[in-house]
Amino acid sequence: MAINHLEQLISLLAKLPGLGPRSARRAALVLLKKKDTLLLPLADALRDTAATVQTCGECGNLDTVNPCAICTDMRRDAHTICVVEDVADLWAIERAQAYSGLYHVLGGTLSALDGIGPDELNIGKLIERAEDGKALEIILATNATISGQTTAHYITDRLSHLPLKISRLSTGVPMGGELDYLDEGTLLTAISGRRPF
Amino acid sequence: MAINHLEQLISLLAKLPGLGPRSARRAALVLLKKKDTLLLPLADALRDTAATVQTCGECGNLDTVNPCAICTDMRRDAHTICVVEDVADLWAIERAQAYSGLYHVLGGTLSALDGIGPDELNIGKLIERAEDGKALEIILATNATISGQTTAHYITDRLSHLPLKISRLSTGVPMGGELDYLDEGTLLTAISGRRPF
Repeated sequence: MAINHLEQLISLLAKLPGLGPRSARRAALVLLKKKDTLLLPLADALRDTAATVQTCGECGNLDTVNPCAICTDMRRDAHTICVVEDVADLWAIERAQAYSGLYHVLGGTLSALDGIGPDELNIGKLIERAEDGKALEIILATNATISGQTTAHYITDRLSHLPLKISRLSTGVPMGGELDYLDEGTLLTAISGRRPF
Repeated sequence: MAINHLEQLISLLAKLPGLGPRSARRAALVLLKKKDTLLLPLADALRDTAATVQTCGECGNLDTVNPCAICTDMRRDAHTICVVEDVADLWAIERAQAYSGLYHVLGGTLSALDGIGPDELNIGKLIERAEDGKALEIILATNATISGQTTAHYITDRLSHLPLKISRLSTGVPMGGELDYLDEGTLLTAISGRRPF
């Protein structure tokens, strides 16, 4: 079978997170069956996205405009900057509708193993933004993982010369979480961080 | 966030089997990060596939030529037709490298619930191919599900006036299967279909 275009499509689809070789084949067949409603619109959407979506020079968010819609939104609180690892984290916080300040996307975490130092991340620009004096609070919303917390500590050090309030997300039992199913680390932080009822 | 192209891309990706809304967002971010190595090649591959891949008028397979490479391959045994539900099944059998005859892709199974009758499937063309006299054996390789077996029975009826050998795949314990983990139905067919050692 010399279906080269199809083989090429399948091998590219298999590179997407969440799709393996088998599900990529299934996806390719679904795309071919829905040529006009799915395959061609997807090709267009990919081209349009490539042509229009860019990284915000201010905060590292992705948007069709630069600076992004969040950075230029006058209704948002410019005194607070929430530092996240990835655009996906920014989206997650936006969906929660619990935050109306600005963001700063690092683009990853420090990792000696992977050779990712401060220069590989969007940290210099964060220091710059913090130093210009507009921000009063920096929320370090990196993941509650070793590398996320290491990165948060590093940023705290770099910002220590500035009169800023630096905070981080609370840790503990997630909403709806059953104690029985939680790991010991989470229970430990939940107990040591207990608050008056 | 008015990232319309990106939202459009995510909603289309979420329609692929194996990807939900959350993994579609993750896939979109990976695509944007690998614009030149993944996003643009994927857009091209989709366009190329849409432009070149077509359904074989003879057997229902997908290929860049019509009739497909399998139907026109002189080294294959034209006396045997293996009937499968879907192109994915054809690919699976080809990967096993255990069959060198021709195929016939039905495009689904009979389903009264979904309103899929014989006319919605590629059955008429199969009868036509069987009646032209070249085929000596029809292997019914529909899935071992209720609808797959119903469809196989229906096709057997439709072919009963022809002097053909009609066979189906053997059922039983899959290779590497542990009896402990198999369902009762499989064990039942494996025991009732036992063969001399």
